Amino acid sequence: MLKELLQKENFFEGQLTASKREALWTKLGDLNPADLATEISELEQGQILALFRAMPKDLAAEVFTYLSREIHEDIFKQISHDEIAALLNEMFVDDAVDVAQELPSNIVRKLIDKVEDPSQRQLINEFLNFPKDSAGSLMTVEFICLFGTQTCADALQYIRKNGVDKETINTCYVTDATRHLTGIISLRTILLSPEDARVEDVMERNYICAHTHDDREAVAADFRKYDLTAMPVLDTEDRIVGIITSDDIMDVIDAEKNEDIEKMAALTPSEKPYLDTSVWELARNRVKWLLLLMIGATVTSFIINRYNELLSHMVMLAAFLPMLMDTGGNSGNQVSTLIVRDLGNGGIEPHDWPMVLWKELRVGLMCGVVLAIVSFLRIYFFQSGVALDVNIVVSLTLLCAVVFAKLMGCTLPIVAQLCKVDPALMASPLITTIVDAFTLVIYFAIATHLLPNQV
Amino acid sequence: MLKELLQKENFFEGQLTASKREALWTKLGDLNPADLATEISELEQGQILALFRAMPKDLAAEVFTYLSREIHEDIFKQISHDEIAALLNEMFVDDAVDVAQELPSNIVRKLIDKVEDPSQRQLINEFLNFPKDSAGSLMTVEFICLFGTQTCADALQYIRKNGVDKETINTCYVTDATRHLTGIISLRTILLSPEDARVEDVMERNYICAHTHDDREAVAADFRKYDLTAMPVLDTEDRIVGIITSDDIMDVIDAEKNEDIEKMAALTPSEKPYLDTSVWELARNRVKWLLLLMIGATVTSFIINRYNELLSHMVMLAAFLPMLMDTGGNSGNQVSTLIVRDLGNGGIEPHDWPMVLWKELRVGLMCGVVLAIVSFLRIYFFQSGVALDVNIVVSLTLLCAVVFAKLMGCTLPIVAQLCKVDPALMASPLITTIVDAFTLVIYFAIATHLLPNQV
Repeated sequence: MLKELLQKENFFEGQLTASKREALWTKLGDLNPADLATEISELEQGQILALFRAMPKDLAAEVFTYLSREIHEDIFKQISHDEIAALLNEMFVDDAVDVAQELPSNIVRKLIDKVEDPSQRQLINEFLNFPKDSAGSLMTVEFICLFGTQTCADALQYIRKNGVDKETINTCYVTDATRHLTGIISLRTILLSPEDARVEDVMERNYICAHTHDDREAVAADFRKYDLTAMPVLDTEDRIVGIITSDDIMDVIDAEKNEDIEKMAALTPSEKPYLDTSVWELARNRVKWLLLLMIGATVTSFIINRYNELLSHMVMLAAFLPMLMDTGGNSGNQVSTLIVRDLGNGGIEPHDWPMVLWKELRVGLMCGVVLAIVSFLRIYFFQSGVALDVNIVVSLTLLCAVVFAKLMGCTLPIVAQLCKVDPALMASPLITTIVDAFTLVIYFAIATHLLPNQV
Repeated sequence: MLKELLQKENFFEGQLTASKREALWTKLGDLNPADLATEISELEQGQILALFRAMPKDLAAEVFTYLSREIHEDIFKQISHDEIAALLNEMFVDDAVDVAQELPSNIVRKLIDKVEDPSQRQLINEFLNFPKDSAGSLMTVEFICLFGTQTCADALQYIRKNGVDKETINTCYVTDATRHLTGIISLRTILLSPEDARVEDVMERNYICAHTHDDREAVAADFRKYDLTAMPVLDTEDRIVGIITSDDIMDVIDAEKNEDIEKMAALTPSEKPYLDTSVWELARNRVKWLLLLMIGATVTSFIINRYNELLSHMVMLAAFLPMLMDTGGNSGNQVSTLIVRDLGNGGIEPHDWPMVLWKELRVGLMCGVVLAIVSFLRIYFFQSGVALDVNIVVSLTLLCAVVFAKLMGCTLPIVAQLCKVDPALMASPLITTIVDAFTLVIYFAIATHLLPNQV
């Protein structure tokens, strides 16, 4: 649509009069910036650049934040540092910081020096120093500050005059002369209170806040617990330095969950989209975990070696190894996934462990019995070459493996939490290795016991 | 804290005067309702009930929505239907519907008949009929409707008069006489526009909306894409019937991610907290997947059976089976997890498949070569009983298994997406089974080829 529009107007041939150009910008400005960004992404690389150079700076800055990292990099490669600085100048500080973080740090320093507005410059600098996953790196500084001694009518006047550049005016922050937060007040309260009521008499003194170095995951948990749409961020001396809004938190919730998923799949978490990650980086994120787990799995080969003799007499036993180990691994993963989820959202605390263990013992027995019976019947009727006693050994092992896997699956993440290790790390692959080893030991132990004449 | 306060006042002995009681409610009302709910949860069961009965209905209703399902059930068991109906009467419609959905449906019907306000009653009924994961079931009906012909000053007056009961007044919705949505306008725009400007001249006509039957996952995606804090919901005739606010969406993002995680761990997704789920339910959610995967895994035993003879001559080969299969499974899961994540957020489209495949071929070769070399050296130096040719067979199989696992790990979820099957279902356990089977085949094939004198 944008493409056709630009072609119709011969935009790229540069034959637009100033007034036509003006009309074009108005038309584009009416579009939702996220949609406009999608349409821009579909243009050719040279066209994107030409369009960006021609656009009014405020529109360009707004659309820019919605473009992908890949396009950012393309644009940065081709425009001058002055042009980048001009873009940063127009953005909300938190967006500018996000963009700056994508750039090599030596370029960032040069760029920031070119940002015209000294307070914007100082802020970007300050923000770049907050730890990556902290409340400080999420917050924005464009918020409304009021004084407790103002009347609601004055406050409303003030908002009317100063609200244009603020990310939200729905919640306002009340401070004393030293910028210490004394309360928060919603625009709704200001509007619905008598005009002559003093802000400090109607404001909420019981507010939820974060500090700049708080972990973003904890902030997101508070947003959800208290159903917030914005939260003030205080520095170490309890002065308000910024606010976090719900749109940022949605991304945090998504990112934190992805982190868990990736850890459970033995990956080093990365927020980079797959297609933007280089082959080299993908391989590096994966190979260390694969190595660790492979080395861990060698314990299984030592166990099997110990029972070489038994196996050489009863090669049939080997045939059931994969099925037994897979079922054990799956059983363990099912529990650990639920436990990691509920440890994360506070639904389970480490002191619940005995209760969880007792629950899993019963679940494990139920699942184990069903699986053992089905496996027994399947082998009995469909795999006639298997002797009855071998079949019994397999079924018994299955039952033991499932119960053991369930117990380990709930215990390991809770132990990890107690040891302050991330429970997600303890989940999927590690459990598989432990359950595998146990399954082998129990399998051969039962076999040695029940099949003595074969050995 | 609450406990001590109640004890100090001898609350449970019922010796409170009316004025002291009043003071207590004011004190509790000043607390954040989410915190108050946490404190109430820590009281004994009988005390919770006594407190609830004594509380003013509006406070009780507010706190109630923050209590756990378990406590809800305890309370419901002990209070009369009239009391429940009185609670529902005080709640925002969406909260009331959430509570009603927890109750057995025959009780719900009776309860709703007791809700006094007929419009509240009708709304609850209507809401209960929306599909569980639809936009309709998420929305709230307490929003501000304006007319385009109003001036901003009139609109502000209207909001002042009618805003008290609304869930948000930050965004207002502009309709024509037939409740068709013509635009949206933020309170900020109303405040910052000239007083005599007409609403329709300053409102945003380009708004993002949902329909009652839209899936909540799509709604959440739009919230994140457009950085929204509220979204209007239209019925099939495009009349506005409700709005969805960002606090509900945060829960949706979390729930949808959990659904993916659970599917990848071969669980039937459930939003119930672990501790609230019965043993029976847990077992049922798990055993069907375990059965399915166990039956799938039997293919491996047929493969091993075919190579019985080889194995009985070279029992040593069996020792490496678990390590090879685990490493293959882990390699596959690493990819499928990333692909499922990016298919979900639109970062990868099915037509990217050739690019992804080419990327994974290279990643797989890199990881595979590293793993094969490490495994070879480990066996060579630390497992002296293993013949050199067996060691070579293991290393080669490892390389092939990793590459194959990477290729399957990216292909299966994309194929699932194309077939309109949920990619998360195709992820972890199914891939393990397929990779296991392939690893066995390649292992024995290489062994037969390289170790001919042993067979």
